[in-house]
Formats: sequence, C-alpha cells, structure tokens
Amino acid sequence: MTSRERVRAAAVKLFAAKGFHGTGIRDLAQEAELSSASLYHYMGTKEDLLADIMTTALRRLLDTARHAVAEVTDPVARMRTLVALHVLAHAILPAETRVVDNELDVLSEGPRDQVVRLRDDYEKLWSDTIEEGVAAGVFHTAHPAVTRLALLEMCNGVARWYSPRGPLALDQLAAHYAELALRALGCDCPAGVSELRREREMVAKVWGVPV
Amino acid sequence: MTSRERVRAAAVKLFAAKGFHGTGIRDLAQEAELSSASLYHYMGTKEDLLADIMTTALRRLLDTARHAVAEVTDPVARMRTLVALHVLAHAILPAETRVVDNELDVLSEGPRDQVVRLRDDYEKLWSDTIEEGVAAGVFHTAHPAVTRLALLEMCNGVARWYSPRGPLALDQLAAHYAELALRALGCDCPAGVSELRREREMVAKVWGVPV
Repeated sequence: MTSRERVRAAAVKLFAAKGFHGTGIRDLAQEAELSSASLYHYMGTKEDLLADIMTTALRRLLDTARHAVAEVTDPVARMRTLVALHVLAHAILPAETRVVDNELDVLSEGPRDQVVRLRDDYEKLWSDTIEEGVAAGVFHTAHPAVTRLALLEMCNGVARWYSPRGPLALDQLAAHYAELALRALGCDCPAGVSELRREREMVAKVWGVPV
Repeated sequence: MTSRERVRAAAVKLFAAKGFHGTGIRDLAQEAELSSASLYHYMGTKEDLLADIMTTALRRLLDTARHAVAEVTDPVARMRTLVALHVLAHAILPAETRVVDNELDVLSEGPRDQVVRLRDDYEKLWSDTIEEGVAAGVFHTAHPAVTRLALLEMCNGVARWYSPRGPLALDQLAAHYAELALRALGCDCPAGVSELRREREMVAKVWGVPV
C-alpha cells in the first residue's frame, strides 16, 4: 500500500469505529504509521479526507449501478440488480459504507453538496426503477418515495450486521434481499433464487473482492 | 426539567449528533447548563450515562411491545403492531433511537451485556412472531433470521430520514411500513390501511407525544 492508501484505510477504519468527531489526527497518524506532519501532506484536513472517502465510494457505487442497469429495461430485473449490488457493496465494505451512510452531517456546505448530489443521482436510479415498475403495473406502492427510503435503509443495514463467518453466503444474501425488496414492492415475481452472476462478477471486478 | 433530565437530554442530543467519542464532558456540561463537577454528580461517568440512556430506551420499547402483543394471537396482527410501534418510536425519538442503534460497541462488557440482553429479548418478540407466521403458513421466508434483521434495519432507518414536516403523517408512515414488512414476509394480506389506533394511543401514552 502507498502512504496515501494507508491513510485512507486508517481513516475508514477509525471513522467507522469511533466517528469522525471521535477520531483525532494523532489516532490517524498512529494507525497509518506516519507522523502527523506527513499525514497532513497526504490528506489535507481531516474533513478533506472524509469528503474524499465519501465521494469516491459513492461515485464507484453510482458508476457500477449505472453500468449494470444501462441495458436492462425490465424494472423487475433492474430492481433486483440494484438491490444486489447495494447489498454486496455493503457486505464487502462495511466500514466504508457506514462512514458514507453516517457522517454526512459532519461535512461543511461545499463538500456536503457534492456528496448529496452523488447520493441523489444514485437514489434516482432506484426511484426511476420504482416509478417505471409502478407505471408498468408490476410494482404496487402507495408511497414510492417512502418505499425507496425504506428499502435503501434495509439494504444499508447489511453493513451493520453481516458477517462472512455467518451461515449465509454473499450470493444467497443478495438474492434474499432482492426477493424481500421485490415483495415489498408488491411484485408478484416468480419464486426461485436468481443467480445474480453478472452482479457478483461486477462487484468482484470493481471492488477487487471475490464474491 | 430537573438537572438529571437536562443532563440526559443533552447527552441524547450530543451523542446522536457527534457520537459518544466525539462528545466531551465540557460539551455536555455546557449543553445541560451545569458545571462539569455537578454534571458528574448527576450522571457518573460518560459511559454510565450512555448505558442508562440505552437500557431505559430499550426497556421502554420492550415493555410497550410486550404489552401490545400480549393478547394478540394472530401473527399478522402481531407483526403489524410490532412494526408500527417500532416505526413510531423511531420517528418520534430519532436522536434517542440513533444512540441506541449506533453506540453499542462503545460500552464495556458489563453494561454491554445488559443492553444486548434487552435487545435480544426485544428481537425475540419479532423472531417468535415470524416463526409463528411461518408455522401457520401465513408468512413465507427461506431465511427468517435474516428477514428479521432486514426488517428491523428498515424500520430503524426511519430515525435517519423521517421529518414531521414531510408529506406523510405518523399514522400513514406506520401503516405503510407495516404493509412493506408483511409483504416482504410473503404475506398475502388484505389491502387497505389499518388504522393502528391502539398502537398510536400506546405510543402517545408511553412516550408522551401525541400521534
């Protein structure tokens, strides 16, 4: 790992465990095995580092999701893909995704706007898919926006409890969540577990973790 | 408010906003308008205060939920009640429930065990209800424990996004989440929004907030 990568990994670990406000510059330097001065060289301020972690993570998730659904027109298949990617990313990178999901309020206005824009773009993939499913008559929900938030939070939660040492393999986890989400959307989908092979390959490639 | 109540309210607010590690004794004293010395008198250590907040909140939720489902034998009705109470509590007390949901790892072993026991007792209400629904053939889920965690996280998320100034009233919110949860459980439930009047009355009484 380069020094920059070490700083980033240290920040993800400490921000996730102790929160942004609970993490001191000295903690970061110690965890990254650098002096406080050279830490500053690699990261700028602590807030710069947080903003960089959040925008990089969100952009990667957004790009991957966009690419994954680009040629998928069926809203049911799109939803399944969106849920699977989100769940896999949260299961593989629990610390990073917890930082993204929990520390937004910490940022000052400029970087915050940038993160919010990325998050809005990402969530728009979900809301468009839900709307198209409703228009096509395959999804049924009285409050599409609330349903989107509920499903996103359900999937975010994976970062808080999933353990690779548990009884459920990643592919089963992703398929189960896709089923829960589609059912919650009132979708009368065919039973039977989808393999999600393409999604797993994309996650393995983008995040460098075998799934 | 008594001094003790002021300290508690200050701690809930600051722990939720800045995390336990990010909140200093001096911040707490300032927010509660007390000296650091008298703060200590009212709260003991910062960890004692966190443990007290978590156990009190969880015990209240557990007692209310137990009471609410005590005489309800139909698993569908029980599930609807459990979801509604959880969602209402999280929407009404977002700061308190965020502290309960996020700061468990901060506690040392003794108080942590106590909190985990309460949480396990509470989650057992959910898992028993899901199991009974599966046994009765009204719920269908291949992974009941994962489904329970997914639904709890979905409902916890309300504390992160719900605003009373938004378009959805609390009773609609609770009813919508109950529908999402029952659908996710594969329940072929009658459409139409349940009024959840009893649940709203219980929440208003226990938490002192009109719903």
